Amino acid sequence: MADENSKKLVSVALNHEENENKEDFVDPWNVQSASATGVDYAKLIDRFGSSAIDSELIDRIEKVTGKQAHHFLKRGIFFSHREMHKILDLYEQKKPFYLYTGRGPSSESMHMGHLIPFIFTKWLQETFDVPLVIQMTDDEKYLWKDISIDEVQRVALENVKDIISLGFDIDKTFIFCDFNYIGQCPDFYKLIVQIQKHVTFNQVKGIFGFGESDCIGKISFPAIQAAPSFSTAFPHIFKGKRNIPCLIPCAIDQDPYFRMTRDVAPRINLPKPALLHSVFFPALQGATSKMSASDPNSCILLTDTPNQIKNKVNKYAFSGGQATVEEHREKGGNCDVDVSYQYLKFFLEDGEKLEKIRQDYTSGKLLTGHLKKELITVLQLIVAEIQEKRKTITDELAREFMTPRKLKFDY
Amino acid sequence: MADENSKKLVSVALNHEENENKEDFVDPWNVQSASATGVDYAKLIDRFGSSAIDSELIDRIEKVTGKQAHHFLKRGIFFSHREMHKILDLYEQKKPFYLYTGRGPSSESMHMGHLIPFIFTKWLQETFDVPLVIQMTDDEKYLWKDISIDEVQRVALENVKDIISLGFDIDKTFIFCDFNYIGQCPDFYKLIVQIQKHVTFNQVKGIFGFGESDCIGKISFPAIQAAPSFSTAFPHIFKGKRNIPCLIPCAIDQDPYFRMTRDVAPRINLPKPALLHSVFFPALQGATSKMSASDPNSCILLTDTPNQIKNKVNKYAFSGGQATVEEHREKGGNCDVDVSYQYLKFFLEDGEKLEKIRQDYTSGKLLTGHLKKELITVLQLIVAEIQEKRKTITDELAREFMTPRKLKFDY
Repeated sequence: MADENSKKLVSVALNHEENENKEDFVDPWNVQSASATGVDYAKLIDRFGSSAIDSELIDRIEKVTGKQAHHFLKRGIFFSHREMHKILDLYEQKKPFYLYTGRGPSSESMHMGHLIPFIFTKWLQETFDVPLVIQMTDDEKYLWKDISIDEVQRVALENVKDIISLGFDIDKTFIFCDFNYIGQCPDFYKLIVQIQKHVTFNQVKGIFGFGESDCIGKISFPAIQAAPSFSTAFPHIFKGKRNIPCLIPCAIDQDPYFRMTRDVAPRINLPKPALLHSVFFPALQGATSKMSASDPNSCILLTDTPNQIKNKVNKYAFSGGQATVEEHREKGGNCDVDVSYQYLKFFLEDGEKLEKIRQDYTSGKLLTGHLKKELITVLQLIVAEIQEKRKTITDELAREFMTPRKLKFDY
Repeated sequence: MADENSKKLVSVALNHEENENKEDFVDPWNVQSASATGVDYAKLIDRFGSSAIDSELIDRIEKVTGKQAHHFLKRGIFFSHREMHKILDLYEQKKPFYLYTGRGPSSESMHMGHLIPFIFTKWLQETFDVPLVIQMTDDEKYLWKDISIDEVQRVALENVKDIISLGFDIDKTFIFCDFNYIGQCPDFYKLIVQIQKHVTFNQVKGIFGFGESDCIGKISFPAIQAAPSFSTAFPHIFKGKRNIPCLIPCAIDQDPYFRMTRDVAPRINLPKPALLHSVFFPALQGATSKMSASDPNSCILLTDTPNQIKNKVNKYAFSGGQATVEEHREKGGNCDVDVSYQYLKFFLEDGEKLEKIRQDYTSGKLLTGHLKKELITVLQLIVAEIQEKRKTITDELAREFMTPRKLKFDY
């Protein structure tokens, strides 16, 4: 899974009537939004050919699980899907499926944006009680970045510990780093080669924009991110069963990998994975791009102190407020571009409180300073909780999560 | 390692003064000779940029080892090399190196042509007393042919048993199939990705003629054949030592893989492999192409009965003799195109006898029927011996050869 810039790609604008300069650009390595309010997600659904997560789907999730939908669903943070209804059918029929998500371990410490798919995945796992596999694409990061294999493996282990700190259940979760797992599981390698046989250079060129001067490692990598979508990748969990469907929660920029995967699936007689797509987490500086851990001022890191969090929000969080208090009281703030408000949408669980903040900020009753203060409190609390948990995560525990083994499910 | 046609490539004729139609074509999947006497090997040395194995090198091999050079060397069957003198330097200095060869397991039974690199490798191993690794590229065959993974793995095991029948020493030889070994050895996978990071699509396009409609598995495969050239691929043998050089005996059509490997080596701080190249083994029908196991009438299979051998040689072996006995007595035969004589060059160890046959056939004293009879006797003997040994090779023994383990050498 990629989250940082490494190459410039030519946007394939599917919406030809659109002015080219106004088209958002989204692929696994680059997100460039054309407007200050961020990417136009409705348009992205059109271009990618996925389906919007509508109130009907959210209602059905609540109905079949008997649980409140996660606020990421209700607030449009997970906004798009592919075949989620099929997954709900399976759940109703008490048939198995599993969850797959992942991360490209690029930076020593993860940032708040990196947490989004994992927070949601944890909720899905607890709600549906299914196995979860988490892929750390250390091989991808080695291929795309100027980093040694040893270093990327070290960073991956640190990231795994960050992820575990969110509270995943070791009895139901398998985390793996490609550099290790491919060398541990012949079935996984076989599946990768099967996928590689069914995808041409032309296809990855069209999907990912690869060119002739790209290394052959990059060109064949998409098969490695595709492979965990199929249960044969995990013989220790699924006992070689070929037909256990997969649900992938991920940010929308990862969808190209899984469009490719869904194309290949019927040709290798395996089920297409279903998907749930999230919006991007904005940088502190504004919603026109994703956060990047390589610019520590653009994001809240999981290692930030309460003071660092306070200072970063106060100093960098793009404000939708007016220039002066008087003007703000009069005209009100703009929640659509205000990063503090956007972050609260992600992290403030209390929906009523969030709505009140929205109304008061929009009306001008709530000032930017107070809005930021709300956010600082919320972030400090979440980060402190993760840091507390993180202290208890030993290398040994991380390695246990990464040991191929049977999980608490029978197949 | 590939030995069968699967795609047509455009010959990159390096010798521009040459008439295009007269240029031999040689790559890992196709060998097309422009003349009835077969490929022009001197020209190939020029084009590939390797060095001829001359009498000076052969003398030096005999001098440093104190042993007679193999008749494959004396008769020009192994005719080209890269840096063999460096390997002899190491041997003189009692420094370690190892041997690497391989095979693409494409057909149930191997044919006599497949034996050439293995017969010579066995002699090298016995002469220099060094470890040998043998790669079975079952993944390559799956990618290039219309065959299932299960089937290619089954065929690979049969081929491994054929190879073991030549008498390799289990204490000094590690045989591995990619589909298993890559899933057993994280260090091997890491090395493959390292190589894949340092080779572009443009490079494999230039070297192997890959195109945009080729699958990404083919495009990234060359790294997998390159990887065993480096001792880090075998931590169980070399304990992670990075600097143990490799000598690769192979047919000249495999050289493109190792030119690429030698290009990459300095960029990943590993030693370039040395090479010894053989000529192609001609089809029964003539020296203009390689034998192919997919046409049983073009080759002597290791499973052929004495009668089948006799019939195939009598019926199909292209003759350099004249149309009638009288004409033959008068004008003599042409050893350069006579397949029976060519085969005797490979398999009749007695050099004096071979020379007498050559003289008598050339003068017309020896008739084609008698020449064929000599060959039939030689082939029947060799094949019977291998078949006898083959009966004793159990699946279990083959799996022992294929178990990653320490060999009888200390590093």
